[in-house]
Amino acid sequence: MALTYSLAEIASRLGGSVLGDGEVRISSIATLEHADATQISFLTNSKYRGKLAETRAGALILGEADADASDLPRIIAANPYAYFARVSALLNPLPEIQPGVHPSAVVGEGARIDPTASIAATAVIGAGAVIGAHCVIGAGCSIGDHVVIGSHARLYPRVVIYHDCVIGDNLIAHSGVVIGADGFGIAMDEGRWIKIPQIGRVVIGDDVEIGANTTLDRGALDDTVIEEGVKLDNQIQIAHNVRIGAHTAIAGCVGIAGSTSIGKYCQIGGSAGILGHLKIADRVVISSFTLIGKSIREAGTYTGIFPFSKMDEWKKNAVQMRHLDEMLNRIKVLEKLLSEQKVKEE
Amino acid sequence: MALTYSLAEIASRLGGSVLGDGEVRISSIATLEHADATQISFLTNSKYRGKLAETRAGALILGEADADASDLPRIIAANPYAYFARVSALLNPLPEIQPGVHPSAVVGEGARIDPTASIAATAVIGAGAVIGAHCVIGAGCSIGDHVVIGSHARLYPRVVIYHDCVIGDNLIAHSGVVIGADGFGIAMDEGRWIKIPQIGRVVIGDDVEIGANTTLDRGALDDTVIEEGVKLDNQIQIAHNVRIGAHTAIAGCVGIAGSTSIGKYCQIGGSAGILGHLKIADRVVISSFTLIGKSIREAGTYTGIFPFSKMDEWKKNAVQMRHLDEMLNRIKVLEKLLSEQKVKEE
Amino acid sequence: MALTYSLAEIASRLGGSVLGDGEVRISSIATLEHADATQISFLTNSKYRGKLAETRAGALILGEADADASDLPRIIAANPYAYFARVSALLNPLPEIQPGVHPSAVVGEGARIDPTASIAATAVIGAGAVIGAHCVIGAGCSIGDHVVIGSHARLYPRVVIYHDCVIGDNLIAHSGVVIGADGFGIAMDEGRWIKIPQIGRVVIGDDVEIGANTTLDRGALDDTVIEEGVKLDNQIQIAHNVRIGAHTAIAGCVGIAGSTSIGKYCQIGGSAGILGHLKIADRVVISSFTLIGKSIREAGTYTGIFPFSKMDEWKKNAVQMRHLDEMLNRIKVLEKLLSEQKVKEE
Repeated sequence: MALTYSLAEIASRLGGSVLGDGEVRISSIATLEHADATQISFLTNSKYRGKLAETRAGALILGEADADASDLPRIIAANPYAYFARVSALLNPLPEIQPGVHPSAVVGEGARIDPTASIAATAVIGAGAVIGAHCVIGAGCSIGDHVVIGSHARLYPRVVIYHDCVIGDNLIAHSGVVIGADGFGIAMDEGRWIKIPQIGRVVIGDDVEIGANTTLDRGALDDTVIEEGVKLDNQIQIAHNVRIGAHTAIAGCVGIAGSTSIGKYCQIGGSAGILGHLKIADRVVISSFTLIGKSIREAGTYTGIFPFSKMDEWKKNAVQMRHLDEMLNRIKVLEKLLSEQKVKEE
Repeated sequence: MALTYSLAEIASRLGGSVLGDGEVRISSIATLEHADATQISFLTNSKYRGKLAETRAGALILGEADADASDLPRIIAANPYAYFARVSALLNPLPEIQPGVHPSAVVGEGARIDPTASIAATAVIGAGAVIGAHCVIGAGCSIGDHVVIGSHARLYPRVVIYHDCVIGDNLIAHSGVVIGADGFGIAMDEGRWIKIPQIGRVVIGDDVEIGANTTLDRGALDDTVIEEGVKLDNQIQIAHNVRIGAHTAIAGCVGIAGSTSIGKYCQIGGSAGILGHLKIADRVVISSFTLIGKSIREAGTYTGIFPFSKMDEWKKNAVQMRHLDEMLNRIKVLEKLLSEQKVKEE
Repeated sequence: MALTYSLAEIASRLGGSVLGDGEVRISSIATLEHADATQISFLTNSKYRGKLAETRAGALILGEADADASDLPRIIAANPYAYFARVSALLNPLPEIQPGVHPSAVVGEGARIDPTASIAATAVIGAGAVIGAHCVIGAGCSIGDHVVIGSHARLYPRVVIYHDCVIGDNLIAHSGVVIGADGFGIAMDEGRWIKIPQIGRVVIGDDVEIGANTTLDRGALDDTVIEEGVKLDNQIQIAHNVRIGAHTAIAGCVGIAGSTSIGKYCQIGGSAGILGHLKIADRVVISSFTLIGKSIREAGTYTGIFPFSKMDEWKKNAVQMRHLDEMLNRIKVLEKLLSEQKVKEE
C-alpha cells in the first residue's frame, strides 16, 4: 500500500504554508500534465502559470509569487523546486536496507564491515577495507584494499574503487563509476613511453553523487580531491590531481585535465572541457561544449560554442574561419586608403 | 567445419539474381582486398569499381548499376550493402544458446526466467524480474528488481539495468551499458544541492542496439523512452526524460541533455551534443562535433564544426574570433564613409 | 617496513651521476612542495628552479642544465622526468602476485591459465582462452572464449574482453575497459536498420595501457589494430577497423571513427575527434577539442578550438559567425569601390 500524506502533514514536516483544504491526501508526485487527483504537482517557473488552469492534480506546490495563481489546495514555499524535491523524497523513500553480507560476496582479510551495512551478491571487498554504517554496496562492486568508506554510502552495481581511496559520508555512486584508476602519467624516453607510477589517492568529501560510468583518477604523487557536496553527472572524466571545490555541479561528458583546480559553487555544462594546470575561481559558470584553455579569475559565465546552421550555410561561412586574419588585414588596408584620401582632401 | 553455401542457395534464401556460375561455394565474407577464392566480397559504391579488377574473391555482391563491372560469379541486389549484411549474418550465425541458469548466478525471489533463456556465470537477477524467451544474459550482468525484458535479448557481460525498467524484444546491449541510473536532478537550497528522486523508468522498444559503456538515465517523474529500431553506438549519454524516435541512429560519444525529444529516422554524428528541453524533427542529420542549442523544426543537415588548421595558422585566425563584432563595425564605418563620399561627388 | 635506497644505490641501478652525499637514504618520492628529508624530489623544467630554494626534500633529481641549482644531495640525469618515473617505480613496486585461480572464479572448458597467473574472485574466463605467465586478471573481469593474452598483463576489476581478441605482453587495462564489442555497423533497408555482423577482432601489441572505461570495438571484417607501446587514457572510443600506430598517446574522451588509421608517435589531446576513413601521418599532434575532418599528410600540430570568452562578448561575436561569407562580400564591394575611385583619379 502506498504511503499517503495530507497537505497539512507535509507542511508540518517540510515547512511552507497551506492554502485551501489541508486535509487533501496525496500519494505521489507528478508533472502538471500527468497528475491526477491523488497526486501533488508543482510550478517552479511563473512563465508556465498557464498550465495551472488545465492540471487535474489534487494539490500543488507554488512559489510565493504564484500563491494565488490557482484555487487548488496548495503549499506555498519560498523555493518550490527544492520543496518539490523534498516532497518527492518523502513520498518515495529508498528501499529498506537488508543488512549483512550476501554469501556470494567475497570479503578480504581484515576488512571491517559495519553490521548495519549491506553487501550484495558477487561484490568483492578488499583486504583491510572499512565499510561504514548503513552502506549499501551493490552487486558486483569491487572495493580495493584499504579503502575507507564513511556511513550511508549507496553504491549501485559494478562500481569499482581502487585501493587506498578515502570516501566521506553519504556517497551515491552509480553503476560503472571507477574511482582511483591510474592517472595518465607517461614520460617519453628514447622512443618509448615509461609509466609514471600513480601513488596518490582519490579523497572524496561528504554528500557527493557520481553518475554512471564517470571516472576519477588517483593522483600521481599527491591526491585527487573532490570536496563535499559536489555533484557529478554521467561519463565525466576527472584526471589525476584535479581538485573540485565544494558544491560544484558538473553535467555529463565533461573532461577535466590533470592538476586543474576548480572553485566552489561552479556549474559546468555538458561536454565542456578544462585543460590541465588551470585555476577556476568560485561561482564560475561554463557553458556546454566550451573548452576552457586558461585560468578564470572571476565569477561569471564563460562560453565558446560554435553556432550550428544548415550545412550549406555552414560551408560558406566555415571556409572564412581560416581567413579571418586576412580579412582583418583587408579591412586595415581599406581604412588606410580612406584615411589617406581624407588627408589628401583636406 | 565451416558452413558453405552456393551462390544459388544464397540467392534462394535472400533474393537477388545470380550472374555466372551459381554453384560456386562460399564459406565466408571478406573485403575486396583480402578475399580469396572461397570468399564472397561486395561493392557498395560504384566509385570503387576499379578494385574489382584486382580482387581474388570467389564471388561478388553487386548493385544493379555495376552488374557488368566484373565477370566473377555474382549476385545482383537492389541494395548491395544490406545484402552483404544478410549474407554475413547467414555465414556467421550467433553461437547457440545454452539454456539455463549458471550455478554461480544469483536469482532474486519471484523472478521469472524463461526456460529457453541463458543466464551466465555471476549474473545477478533481481526480485520479480522477468527474462523472456531465448534471452542471453552475460557474465556479471545485474538486472534490477521488477525489470521486464522481452524475448531474444542479448546482453553482453557487465550490463546493468536498474529496477523497474521495461525492455522490448531483440535488445542487444554491449558490455558496460547502464540503463536506468538516476538522472542528474538537483535543486539548490540555501547553499546545498538537494537530490530530486528519479522515479521514472527507462522504456525501450523492440529491435534496439546499445553500444559499450553507453548510459541511459531513468526519468525524473515520467519515463525516458527509446522507440523501436533505435541504434546507439558506444559511450553515448542519454539524460532523463529524453525521447528518441524510432529508427534514429546515433554515433559514439554523443550527449543528449534532459527532456529533449528527437524525431524518427534522425542520424547524429559522433561527439555531437543536444541541449535540454529541445525538439528535433524527423529525418534531421546532425554532423559530428556539433552542438544543437535550439529546436530544429525541419528535416535537413545541420553543422557547427570549427575547422581545424595548422596551429600557427589557427592562432592568427582564432584571435579574431573575439573581434568579429568589432570587425563588422569597422566594415560599417567604411561603408558609411564611402557612401558619404559618393553623395558628395554627386 | 618501507624500502629505502641510498642515492648511490639508485644511481647504480638507474644511471645518472651523484653530486653531494651519496649515502643519503630515500624511502619515497614527492613534489618539491611536499617532500621531507626522507624523500627525493625532482625538477623537470628549469622554469621552476625558484622552488628549489624552499624544498625540504632530502635529495633531488635534476637535469644537466640545473646541476648546480641546488646544494642538496642530487642525481643528475639526461632526462629527469623519465628518471623520476624510474625512481618512483623502484620505490613503489607493484603488489606481489598471488598465483592461482580464486575459488569463486569461473573458468571455461579448455582454457589454459599459466600457473604463475592470478585470477581474482568472480572473474569469468571463457572456453579455450589463454592467459599468459604472470598475468593478473582482476575481480569480475570477463575474458571471452578463445581470447589470447600474453604475459604480464594487469587487468583491473571489471575489464571485459570479447571472444577471439588477441593481446600482446604487458597490457595494463583499467576498470571498465571493453575490448572487442561490436562496431557500429548498420545498413538501412526499407525503413529498418539491418545489423552488419562484426566478425573481425581487436589485436593489441605489446606494452599497451588502456584507461578506465575506454572502449575498443572489434573489426567489421578485418581487425582493429593497436600497435605496440600505444597509451590510451580514460573514456576513449576507438571504432571498428581503426589502426593506431606504435607509441601514439591519446588523452581522455577522444573519439576515433571507423577505419581511420593513425600514425606512430602521434599525440592527441583530450576530447578531440577524428572522422572515419582518414589517414593521419606519423608524429602528428592534435590539440584538445579539435575535430579532424580530413587526412593529415605531414607531421605538425593541428588545432581547431573555438576560443571561449565571457558570455556577453561571445554572444556579440558568435552571431557574426553565421555572416562571415557576407562580411567577406562587403569587404570585396568596398575594395572594388575604392579601386574604381583610384582608376578614376588616375
